[in-house]
Amino acid sequence: MEVDQGRLRKDLEENAQIGAIETSEGQGRTVLTGTKPDQRVRDRFVDCLEEAGLDVRIDEVGNIEGRWVPDHVDSSNSPVAAGSHLDSVPRGGIFDGPLGVYGALEAIRTIREHDVYIDRPLSVVSFTGEEGARFHSGLLGSSAISGVRETEEILTVEDDEGGKVSQALDEIGYAGEDKIDPRNWHAWVELHIEQDTRLEEANVPIGIVERITGITNVKIEIAGEPNHAGSTSMPNRKDALAAASELVLDVETTAREEHANRCSGAVGTVGEFDVAPNEKSIVPGRVEAVLDIRATEYDSMDRLVDAARRSLHRLETERGLETLFNRYRDQQPSQMSETAIKAAIEGATRAGIEYQRMDSGAVHDTANIAQATDTVLLFAPSKDGISHSPREWTDWADCETATTVLAETMVTLATD
Amino acid sequence: MEVDQGRLRKDLEENAQIGAIETSEGQGRTVLTGTKPDQRVRDRFVDCLEEAGLDVRIDEVGNIEGRWVPDHVDSSNSPVAAGSHLDSVPRGGIFDGPLGVYGALEAIRTIREHDVYIDRPLSVVSFTGEEGARFHSGLLGSSAISGVRETEEILTVEDDEGGKVSQALDEIGYAGEDKIDPRNWHAWVELHIEQDTRLEEANVPIGIVERITGITNVKIEIAGEPNHAGSTSMPNRKDALAAASELVLDVETTAREEHANRCSGAVGTVGEFDVAPNEKSIVPGRVEAVLDIRATEYDSMDRLVDAARRSLHRLETERGLETLFNRYRDQQPSQMSETAIKAAIEGATRAGIEYQRMDSGAVHDTANIAQATDTVLLFAPSKDGISHSPREWTDWADCETATTVLAETMVTLATD
Repeated sequence: MEVDQGRLRKDLEENAQIGAIETSEGQGRTVLTGTKPDQRVRDRFVDCLEEAGLDVRIDEVGNIEGRWVPDHVDSSNSPVAAGSHLDSVPRGGIFDGPLGVYGALEAIRTIREHDVYIDRPLSVVSFTGEEGARFHSGLLGSSAISGVRETEEILTVEDDEGGKVSQALDEIGYAGEDKIDPRNWHAWVELHIEQDTRLEEANVPIGIVERITGITNVKIEIAGEPNHAGSTSMPNRKDALAAASELVLDVETTAREEHANRCSGAVGTVGEFDVAPNEKSIVPGRVEAVLDIRATEYDSMDRLVDAARRSLHRLETERGLETLFNRYRDQQPSQMSETAIKAAIEGATRAGIEYQRMDSGAVHDTANIAQATDTVLLFAPSKDGISHSPREWTDWADCETATTVLAETMVTLATD
Repeated sequence: MEVDQGRLRKDLEENAQIGAIETSEGQGRTVLTGTKPDQRVRDRFVDCLEEAGLDVRIDEVGNIEGRWVPDHVDSSNSPVAAGSHLDSVPRGGIFDGPLGVYGALEAIRTIREHDVYIDRPLSVVSFTGEEGARFHSGLLGSSAISGVRETEEILTVEDDEGGKVSQALDEIGYAGEDKIDPRNWHAWVELHIEQDTRLEEANVPIGIVERITGITNVKIEIAGEPNHAGSTSMPNRKDALAAASELVLDVETTAREEHANRCSGAVGTVGEFDVAPNEKSIVPGRVEAVLDIRATEYDSMDRLVDAARRSLHRLETERGLETLFNRYRDQQPSQMSETAIKAAIEGATRAGIEYQRMDSGAVHDTANIAQATDTVLLFAPSKDGISHSPREWTDWADCETATTVLAETMVTLATD
C-alpha cells in the first residue's frame, strides 16, 4: 500500500491555517475547545469525511466519527477505529493531534483505493478537548465515551469565565446526538508524534507503544513565617523556600532511584512553584507547588507519592512548618493490548519499516480508550523532541511512513 | 527629664493619618517618596519645626533639618543631630521612621522645656527616601549627604515610569537649596523600631546598637532546559529548579555555620525566586533569584558570597547548566562610635532605664551617616517583631521611654 504523502500534507497544512499564529520560527496554531478556530477545524474535517464518502456522526461531547463500511462488509461488524484530536495548546504545533486524525483518514482512503481486503468497517475519530488548555482538564472526549468520567461531569467542566463545555459545544454547533461507544469498536489505533527524541536518536521511523504512563498530580503547600531577612537570625527562621528546596531534591532523588532500579518510565517533577511574598529582603513565608509523578507501573507512582509525603512530614517535624498535601489527580498506567501491539508489528513488518517498541511518558486519549477495547499507540519522530511549540516538526516523509504503518495495522486488525 | 508622651503620640497619630490605608487590623500608611502623601507629611513636619521655633533648612535631595541654637550657645558650634525618615513602604506601619523623627523633635522640646544645660545646637533631621519603595533604591537622602553616593546619581534615580528623584522633589516643592552636611555634625543619633523580637523577649525597653549589618545582594540566574515532564527521563533532565534548590540549601547551610561559628549576625536569604515556565507538566528551564547576605563583619559576608559562587560552579559542572552571578550591591557593615555608644549608655543609666547592647540586622540611614561623624542607633521594642505592615506596633509607653533615652543621649553628646 502506498500512502499519498501530498494529500496527507495538504490536509495537515490546510488544517494548520486555521487558528494560525504569527511566529518568528516554525509554524504554530491556537485551537482551543469550543472556539471559532475549533469550529473551523471541525467543519473542515467533516467536509473531508463527507467528501471521502464516510458516514459522519457527532456525539454529545462533540467527538466526531467518520465510518466507512466496505460493500462486502456487514455494517453490524464492530469497526476498527483510529484517530486523535484536532485541538491544540495555545501557540501549539501543527502535528500534535492532526497527524493522527488526518493520518487515519488518509489510511482509510489508501486502503479503499488499494482494494485491500478487510472484514470490518473502518472509522476515523477526532476527540474533543484533548489538551485541556481552555478548560484546564484534558482528554475530555475520550474520558466521556470510555466511561472513565461521567458525560455529565465532562459537560459541566468550566473555563476561567465560568463557561461550560456544553455551552461551548452548543455555540460552535457540535453538541451532537449520535452515540459513539468504543466498547463497540473491535480495536483502536492512535498515531501521534513522539514529543521526545528516542526515535530520532535511534533513527527509527516508528514507535510501537506498549504502555502509557500513569499520572498523579499533588498540590503541595508549605507555610513557614515571612520575616525580615536582616533581623531574623538563622536559628529563628521558618523558611518555606528552604523547606520546599528539600522537597524538590527529595522528589528528584527518589525518582532517579525508581528510574534506575525499578521502573525506567518513572519520573517526578516539580514544575509549578510559587514563593510568597517573593521579596528579596523577606524570608519566604509560603511556597505553593504542584508535583507531577508518572510511571508505567502504578506501584512506582505510589512509592514516589509516599516518598514525597514522608519528606513533607519530616520537614514539618524538623523545621516546624505546616504543610498540605492534596493528591487531586490519579490516573493509572495503561497497558496496550497484546493483539493490537502484534497487529502493529505485523503491519510494520509487512511494509518493511523498522520499528521500536517503547513506552509513552505523555498521556494520550488512547489511555482512556484502553479501558474500553484493544488499543495500540504509534509514534512518529519529533524533531529535537520539541512539541507544544511552533517549532514542533515531523518530516513529511516520516508522516507518510507512520501513516503507512497505521494503515497496515488497521488492515491487520480488520482482517479476521 | 520627662518626655511628653501625649504630645509625641499626637504627632505620630496625626502623621499616621497622612497616606492612611484601609486595613482590617492595625493601622497602616503608604507614603512613597515624592508623592502627595510625602508632600503632606513633610508640610506637617515643617509646620511642627516652625511652631517649635526651629530654624528649617531643606537641601538638594529633600532632606529636612530643623535646628535649635540655645541662647547661650555659639551658633557656629557643631550640632548634635537626631532623626530618621518619614516615608514608608506600601502599606507600611506608622512607627518605622516617624518614631525617630518626631522622637527627636520631642527630645529637643523636652530638653528646652527642662532648661537642661548643653554646649551645642540640636538638630532634628528627616531623610528623603529611606525605604526605596518607589525608586527601588533606598537610603537616598543619607547616601547623598554622607558622600556614600554622588548627589547627581541620587537625583537621577528613576521610578518604574522613568520619573527621576529630582522631578519628584520639584513637584512636591522639596528640592531645596540649603546645605546639610553631616561632616559638620558633632554626632548623630537615630531612634528606630527594632523590627525584631530580641527586646520584647528580654523585656528590655531600649536597645543600643553597636554595629549595623553590611549587605550584599546577588542576582542569580540558572538556565537548564524546559522539557516535557512525562517524556523526559530523569537522567536526561537539566532541571533549573532542582539545581536552584541545591543553591538555596547551600546558602542556608553556610549561613547557619557562619552564624554558629564566626559571626552571630550572619544571615543568608533567598527571598526572591521565580521559576519559568512555571507549568506543572514542564521540567523547569530557568530560575531567577536574588540572594541577600548580611553580616556585621565584612569577612563573613565575603565567605557567604564565595560559598554561593562555588555552589553555582559545582551545579554548572554536575548538572550541565548555565548560571549567572551578579553581586550588584555591596555595602560594608558600619561600626557605631565608642563615644556615641558611651553617651547612650550614660543617657539610659541617668534615666534609670534598662538597656541592651545589640547589633542591627536591618540597614538604616545611620549606616551612611557613620561614614561622616560619630553615630549611635537606638532601638525601641517591636511587638512580635512585625514591621512593614499595618500590624507594626510599639506601645506608647515604650515610645516615651525610648524618646527619654534619646533625649538623654543627645544631652550627653551636646555637653562638652
